[in-house]
Amino acid sequence: MTTLDELPLRDDLRGRTPYGAPQKVVPVALNVNENTHPIPDAVATDILAAIGEVIPGVNRYPDREFTALRDALAGYLGHGLTRDEIWAANGSNEVLQHVLQAFGGPGRTLLGFVPTYSMYPLLASGTGTAWIGATRDADFELSPESAAAAVRKYEPDIVFLCSPNNPTGTPLSLETIAAVYDATDGIVLVDEAYAEFAHDGEDSALTLLEGRPRLLVSRTMSKAFAYAGVRLGYLAADPAVTDALRLVRLPYHLSALTQAAASAAVAHAPELLAMVDDIRVQRDRIVVRLGELGFQAFRSSSNFVLFGGVDDPNAVFEALLARGILVRDVGIPHTLRVSAGTEAETTTFLEAIADHAPNRI
Amino acid sequence: MTTLDELPLRDDLRGRTPYGAPQKVVPVALNVNENTHPIPDAVATDILAAIGEVIPGVNRYPDREFTALRDALAGYLGHGLTRDEIWAANGSNEVLQHVLQAFGGPGRTLLGFVPTYSMYPLLASGTGTAWIGATRDADFELSPESAAAAVRKYEPDIVFLCSPNNPTGTPLSLETIAAVYDATDGIVLVDEAYAEFAHDGEDSALTLLEGRPRLLVSRTMSKAFAYAGVRLGYLAADPAVTDALRLVRLPYHLSALTQAAASAAVAHAPELLAMVDDIRVQRDRIVVRLGELGFQAFRSSSNFVLFGGVDDPNAVFEALLARGILVRDVGIPHTLRVSAGTEAETTTFLEAIADHAPNRI
Repeated sequence: MTTLDELPLRDDLRGRTPYGAPQKVVPVALNVNENTHPIPDAVATDILAAIGEVIPGVNRYPDREFTALRDALAGYLGHGLTRDEIWAANGSNEVLQHVLQAFGGPGRTLLGFVPTYSMYPLLASGTGTAWIGATRDADFELSPESAAAAVRKYEPDIVFLCSPNNPTGTPLSLETIAAVYDATDGIVLVDEAYAEFAHDGEDSALTLLEGRPRLLVSRTMSKAFAYAGVRLGYLAADPAVTDALRLVRLPYHLSALTQAAASAAVAHAPELLAMVDDIRVQRDRIVVRLGELGFQAFRSSSNFVLFGGVDDPNAVFEALLARGILVRDVGIPHTLRVSAGTEAETTTFLEAIADHAPNRI
Repeated sequence: MTTLDELPLRDDLRGRTPYGAPQKVVPVALNVNENTHPIPDAVATDILAAIGEVIPGVNRYPDREFTALRDALAGYLGHGLTRDEIWAANGSNEVLQHVLQAFGGPGRTLLGFVPTYSMYPLLASGTGTAWIGATRDADFELSPESAAAAVRKYEPDIVFLCSPNNPTGTPLSLETIAAVYDATDGIVLVDEAYAEFAHDGEDSALTLLEGRPRLLVSRTMSKAFAYAGVRLGYLAADPAVTDALRLVRLPYHLSALTQAAASAAVAHAPELLAMVDDIRVQRDRIVVRLGELGFQAFRSSSNFVLFGGVDDPNAVFEALLARGILVRDVGIPHTLRVSAGTEAETTTFLEAIADHAPNRI
């Protein structure tokens, strides 16, 4: 039997293991920040009908420019955006990969503020881009001054700002984003995968796009749209940026099925996003209750909560799993991360975690 | 307005234009080697039903290991293959990109025999791999001796062998593949995108896999399965190779829709592949008729024919287009390429091309 080591693998891949949260079937899966609310039946019917319309023609290549989908996404985002300012790919990871292929690569650098989304350094590695992990302020916050100082110090070609930040949930102010933009001549991408879960009054970086051609704002349909299984990420930026991404995308990268399914879901945005308010309520409930229990729940503008004060994260992870609840150990000492589920799922989690609380009340 | 040149684009991308065959709506589109036969209605119904089953659960991430699809593809390929030897991605271009990310990249080289599939050098560039275009024998053929000599001369890390070759249609002997494998310690990938259109008696490189852990055989559902719009490419290789590809693929790269649609189509392989025989008949008809007309039609084992003897390819391209027929100028002087369509489409093309024939008969 041949082993991986016997193959002429790239040196920087040797000894690595594949990315992967466990895909276990448990009653309460709150580990990968999915939207635990299934698609409403009426919406699912419309989505399937839209797919049914394209099946007879799938012997042909799909629209390489995914024009109808770009129109739909521009309409959803608003802010006066038009199709020329929209890009999309199979999940926001592929969107980010396109950005790194166009503006990063060998001899160039990507800076992020750690702890942050664990795929950033992997995407950097996969495109030959050097990764720089700059540090955050206390409690994973990021001020305009410290963010801009790090950018001036390292002079990266690209900055990824995760807003709100994964895995900490931390919101990012528009002032910090603007300060980072002003501190660099490079590309600044704001990853707003969880933007729809923001508190009222927290503005999107989309409001900053005007006059900033090096600013990119990425989104995903995986979370707020309850569409993780469909794999659709997108971004808004200057038309010159989307032209650059056309140079590196694989031809026909978005299937006819994906284009139809995504366009149909965007047409149902109001129904799909109705679940977002329920999730925000459960997220806030988790923060409050974990605080009462004596954990340190970090403030969150996303659909998940990171909490500290966990003496032995692995033991608590296993104890919860034994009760059918899957959470995530993201590798930050004495913390765990939990996604906000339905009210019932959240209740189940909060009741179970109480047994491991610093304040047994 | 910002221009592409004002952005901090990678230097090697400056001045480039995106890949793209024209996507024109014409009555007879024979330019991108699609299968012009739509999916049969009964099969389309089953595919849609399979997709309908996964829609309610698309709020969750898809099976990252696409286990059911790998089982289906292994069963289709036969040769005793099992799921551990199967990989898949969004189109064979993404499969090849994974191979280059795992085994190529900065400091490494990819060799192909030109003229060949135009995406190979683009995929090399996109992954920082240096491209080596070695030459073919007369009439685009490739003998074991000349292929092995080129591999020994350039010592590439990866060799891509397109079999049958695109855009020339040329079949490749198993002897040549084996000779290339023996001439290198690197990865040898045989791109069998058009394998199902081979003449009777032409064996697949799948027959060579046993005992050759560095040999990879890629396929696509775009052509024989009439599934270009679904974007599903795959490969068979040693389990150590598929483990290597897991290190570079983006997590959850295959959507739940893609997995369901592809598995359902594989289950209907006999009905879908029934069209292949019709297409082979039209392909052979094109070769014979073009020869009668005085063109030099190169021998083809694929669903398209490259033919020389065209004084002014651009003029003939435009003349055909004016009659609603789209063919491809692949950039080889005095040639054009045409895909074999239905009997009616093929007749329309052959009648039109007769007006531009060296022998006006």
